[in-house]
Amino acid sequence: MKGIAILGSTGSIGRQTLDILRAFPQHFRLVGLAGWTNLSLLKQQADQFRPELVSYQGIDPKAPSHLLGHSAPTTLEAMVCHPSVEVVVMAIAGPSCLLPTLQALQAGKTVALASKEAMVMAGPVIARMVGKGATLLPVDSEPSAIWQCLQGEPPKDIARLILTASGGPFRGRPAEELASVTAGEALKHPTWSMGKKITIDSATLMNKALEVMESRWMFNVPWEGIEVVLHPQSIVHSLVEFRDGSVKAQLGLPDMRLPLQYALFYPQRVDNPSLERLDITRLGSLDFLPLDTGRYPCFTLGLEAAKAGGTYPAALCAADDIAVGLFLAGRLGFMEIPTLIQRVLDEHTSGNGDSVEDILAAESWARRRAQELAMVNI
Amino acid sequence: MKGIAILGSTGSIGRQTLDILRAFPQHFRLVGLAGWTNLSLLKQQADQFRPELVSYQGIDPKAPSHLLGHSAPTTLEAMVCHPSVEVVVMAIAGPSCLLPTLQALQAGKTVALASKEAMVMAGPVIARMVGKGATLLPVDSEPSAIWQCLQGEPPKDIARLILTASGGPFRGRPAEELASVTAGEALKHPTWSMGKKITIDSATLMNKALEVMESRWMFNVPWEGIEVVLHPQSIVHSLVEFRDGSVKAQLGLPDMRLPLQYALFYPQRVDNPSLERLDITRLGSLDFLPLDTGRYPCFTLGLEAAKAGGTYPAALCAADDIAVGLFLAGRLGFMEIPTLIQRVLDEHTSGNGDSVEDILAAESWARRRAQELAMVNI
Repeated sequence: MKGIAILGSTGSIGRQTLDILRAFPQHFRLVGLAGWTNLSLLKQQADQFRPELVSYQGIDPKAPSHLLGHSAPTTLEAMVCHPSVEVVVMAIAGPSCLLPTLQALQAGKTVALASKEAMVMAGPVIARMVGKGATLLPVDSEPSAIWQCLQGEPPKDIARLILTASGGPFRGRPAEELASVTAGEALKHPTWSMGKKITIDSATLMNKALEVMESRWMFNVPWEGIEVVLHPQSIVHSLVEFRDGSVKAQLGLPDMRLPLQYALFYPQRVDNPSLERLDITRLGSLDFLPLDTGRYPCFTLGLEAAKAGGTYPAALCAADDIAVGLFLAGRLGFMEIPTLIQRVLDEHTSGNGDSVEDILAAESWARRRAQELAMVNI
Repeated sequence: MKGIAILGSTGSIGRQTLDILRAFPQHFRLVGLAGWTNLSLLKQQADQFRPELVSYQGIDPKAPSHLLGHSAPTTLEAMVCHPSVEVVVMAIAGPSCLLPTLQALQAGKTVALASKEAMVMAGPVIARMVGKGATLLPVDSEPSAIWQCLQGEPPKDIARLILTASGGPFRGRPAEELASVTAGEALKHPTWSMGKKITIDSATLMNKALEVMESRWMFNVPWEGIEVVLHPQSIVHSLVEFRDGSVKAQLGLPDMRLPLQYALFYPQRVDNPSLERLDITRLGSLDFLPLDTGRYPCFTLGLEAAKAGGTYPAALCAADDIAVGLFLAGRLGFMEIPTLIQRVLDEHTSGNGDSVEDILAAESWARRRAQELAMVNI
């Protein structure tokens, strides 16, 4: 039985991870559960699974014991380093995923990474740890698709990674209407059911820029070897072009439980009757269109920060986190998200992207600065 | 340098194999060339490549020496068994591919198989040889796609193979018009440029039934684990569904040189600047539709013969070969192709499908009987 810790268990990915564990009780033992603010759900989960360890509010070890059932309260660091934990499912939304990811890798744990921000902020640091033997498995559907396409293919044969993007809920909307869209509209993703932060990032396509960064470091492919194609149906999750021109794609229904299960069981594939299956003979049309980057300033901003390197990606993540939060609270317009991020990045003085201290300092500076700039404008 | 023999060098696959050899003169040495009746092209090829061995008209060793340049005339059997030959590219159209395929495998050569009839007629025999260590590599685009999708995936994880079919030139044509279509119309394949026999087999979808049989034996997947989907654009060459529901597809422009090159270089992939590349960002729409088998009686006939087993598949291949020849000569209507094959199969008494003698006897009987039946009717 693999010992599992889920960080971010009350979010969308966390809940779906528990679905997989429920389907395969004989394969996994849930050792740790970490939530953030949804204490009632965390308590339900703890009551059902009775993990040894529970953590909430990130780093507060003083959990009221009546909320935690039979589990011992602990810190995230203690949880990811616990000897019974073999795989850490990292599903904390936003930049807070970085430290526990690094701690888990350092402790020799396998990290199943749903939280792409860790890779975005500290790509070179994590890539170096993986180069020295740490195990990081993708969970997000696009890098999971690439990973699956790369099975049995040597990395030197990669010519291009092609990430698919649904284009979000506003793909067909005239650009001049985007300034006035509401959070309610932006949260209606056409194909995926996900958490709020990532759904807004999907509407701005910031999410796709973050995936480009994640893929660049996860698969060690240069920027110019990664492309994005619009694919509104979200059936082809990504593609790899090999040096001979042959292309492989991975397809499936838009259901995160499939890539989650793949990471948890890797290198095995298992049948899970509770997952609906894609029927190729009834697919109908799959569309592939060039991305009009002019419509998606967050995508361009994200790639610029990525290529600038240093601590720009960390500042980007923090500024985006604040901007999306303000948009969800109705305090920022949809097209003000990129404006605010741009202003933070313009003011940023990059630190050393190889230094975790510098990355965390940039993240914290950008978070504060984004809040200040938004206050002035509101 | 890999020593190569090409059987069927003057046909479409043979000529494209020579294109690959021309592009990589430092990797391959052409040891043998075998043509059938196109002596002038065979001579040109022999003059350019100067192989040690040449064969034409299948088994006639007494080739006029002035046609053969510097090469020694030989039989197909001697060619495929020659010590300098490492890989045999089997591209003889129709049932004549069987014997030299078996001889090459017996002699320990790698066979890159474009001629699916060998596998159709003697699937269990060849599968047994492969089980004992013989090496057979697919060249046809659909099984090559499956083979590529299976890299790094254990065979036990296959849930389904999904072969794509363009539907041929008559996909949108009303069924009642099919009786009067001409060979000229049937030869206009919408996406692939191929030899005449296989182009007609693509119009009747007999070719797809033959591919189901080829895949069944090549990948050891039961009949119910193989499906066909209509995909008019011929960009997705086939797909594999794995036991967890994840699906992988291989994509490329409809150009046989890509799967040919993959087989010749396997397990390496190499860049070939002379091959045009698929641009995913400009794909537009890819359609996937259920196959209306009622429109394609040859497809149903083929699968019935396949499942009946024994020497039915050999009889089917022979009857189809004769029927297509008569259709191309204007002596049989398009919808009389399945009628003639059906009559031959109805009369066939199956032999032992594990015996090469029985297979060859069935092939020869069905060929003669198809001719007789056609004579009576014409």
